Amino acid sequence: MSLKIGVVGAGAMGTAISQIVAENTNELLLYAKRKEICDMINQTRYNLEYYPNIELHRNITAVNDLNDLKECEIIFLCIPSSTMREIVEKLNEIIPPECILVSTAKGLEHSTNKRMSEIIEEVIKRPAVVLSGPNIASEMMKSLFSATTIASSNENYLDKVYLALSSNKFKINKNNDIIGTEYCGIIKNVLAISQGILEGMDINANARFAVFTKSYTETKEIIEELGGLRKTVDDYCGFGDIITASTLNVSRNHTLGVLRGQNLIIDEKASGVLFEGKNTSKILKRICDDLNINALTVDFVHEIIIENENPKEAFMKLWNKL
Amino acid sequence: MSLKIGVVGAGAMGTAISQIVAENTNELLLYAKRKEICDMINQTRYNLEYYPNIELHRNITAVNDLNDLKECEIIFLCIPSSTMREIVEKLNEIIPPECILVSTAKGLEHSTNKRMSEIIEEVIKRPAVVLSGPNIASEMMKSLFSATTIASSNENYLDKVYLALSSNKFKINKNNDIIGTEYCGIIKNVLAISQGILEGMDINANARFAVFTKSYTETKEIIEELGGLRKTVDDYCGFGDIITASTLNVSRNHTLGVLRGQNLIIDEKASGVLFEGKNTSKILKRICDDLNINALTVDFVHEIIIENENPKEAFMKLWNKL
Repeated sequence: MSLKIGVVGAGAMGTAISQIVAENTNELLLYAKRKEICDMINQTRYNLEYYPNIELHRNITAVNDLNDLKECEIIFLCIPSSTMREIVEKLNEIIPPECILVSTAKGLEHSTNKRMSEIIEEVIKRPAVVLSGPNIASEMMKSLFSATTIASSNENYLDKVYLALSSNKFKINKNNDIIGTEYCGIIKNVLAISQGILEGMDINANARFAVFTKSYTETKEIIEELGGLRKTVDDYCGFGDIITASTLNVSRNHTLGVLRGQNLIIDEKASGVLFEGKNTSKILKRICDDLNINALTVDFVHEIIIENENPKEAFMKLWNKL
Repeated sequence: MSLKIGVVGAGAMGTAISQIVAENTNELLLYAKRKEICDMINQTRYNLEYYPNIELHRNITAVNDLNDLKECEIIFLCIPSSTMREIVEKLNEIIPPECILVSTAKGLEHSTNKRMSEIIEEVIKRPAVVLSGPNIASEMMKSLFSATTIASSNENYLDKVYLALSSNKFKINKNNDIIGTEYCGIIKNVLAISQGILEGMDINANARFAVFTKSYTETKEIIEELGGLRKTVDDYCGFGDIITASTLNVSRNHTLGVLRGQNLIIDEKASGVLFEGKNTSKILKRICDDLNINALTVDFVHEIIIENENPKEAFMKLWNKL
């Protein structure tokens, strides 16, 4: 493929997406915000901060100036949701009108409750594409088998992004339900925390999975209420990602839950870490309250993580309402 | 409650169901096929074969003659699916016409492909009730929190069984989709084997859960094709039980899969064990073929477990079709 493709963000996900897309294109530009990361990648061919033992694909070139992405036909935005608007506004001054922006961020803008695609579409005045699935970046980086969902209102955009990503190693489902696809990735973080809390509390498996079942149907109810489709929740972006984040120890949100279930509090400042799911639970609680949606899982996580309620009391309240 | 309730089968599930129901009734009769088990329970107050350290509820009395169940208003059938017809035919000679039979068996009759409720209804000429959920018997036995689904075409029967089982510890969802509820429990065994195989092969998590996602939507397709409802699969009998059996090491079917994924074969004769999922995968393959349903998971398990195909080749065939 002769498409010129860019990736913004040289973190775990941006680097992994670059590695996959580089298989399908001749030139992949990976934007790193810090010059030393950019230089390190180009000089050593490794992103030593994330994958010290995996050589980067020869088609990857790191850049340190967003202007270098000016000829890209597709740009993947692998950045925290909190920086999405700022980056897209900058890119909007640079990129050509046919350039497709793909968000991999799973979060909502705190001040507006907006989804990432809403921010993108608001700024660039054309449809966005979102990517969401059970994608453990380190596994993608190792070229292991993986699958994901991409969504957009624009079929032509979807086809192009599909071609950039798809391979026998990386299976892609396409859909037009951008609301459902994005909210799956958002709500998933809250579910991962909730299952983590139950594990941390050493709640028995029957009970954990009874709650998990309720959480899964609540996810469908919330998404339907917000204008998405229930069936999207059964796709890679939903079921696949929810199971991954909730049953394995690969998700920081899950870890946050496990610790909280054991009455341990992470020092976020010292850890230098941002819990997407923590903000999400605040926003999601607000959204559910506004829409009069009674979501036990959202309440449960909010009570424990935001209101610092005792996990055992919060659990009994949840269980009694099942 | 003054209902007289019986349980047939003093195995892990029958004993656990007895323990739960005994909380809600004054007299629970637990039928054990072997006289020595019956005597042991009545003399020691323990079912030493299954729960050597959990005392049985005082309301439980073991019996060794099916005739002793002749005044029961509800009888739970906690027996292997292979013995269902024989037991129900015997009970039909004994029980009064208002007695409700509840099946907890998760399997199909091999010679006819019939569900347990179909056998019951054929023999006793009135609606059956089925119980299916993420119920780890040892957890129920310990009075830990649990949840399950009961289904029947008869609302009155459902209400009565609900009252017999329900407590704050044991949450019950009712529905009228007996086909969907029973098939969830049946297909679950095949999914547990498939996820076990992938674990045994050490397939990476992204790929395992991509296949799991496909398996979940295939479960809905099969159930819809067979006359059940897709939404039933999102309930305790579906999602809850499927996650339990496929992600934990509590299911023998899952263990069978793990071993087969490692190219190990269990000596079933020496183990004296019957793999419900093995028979199920044969029958399910036949059903899918007859109905022209293309179910990758069913094919995958059938190829490996029944046709003895190499797991790696079967996996690649599955993955290529995703």
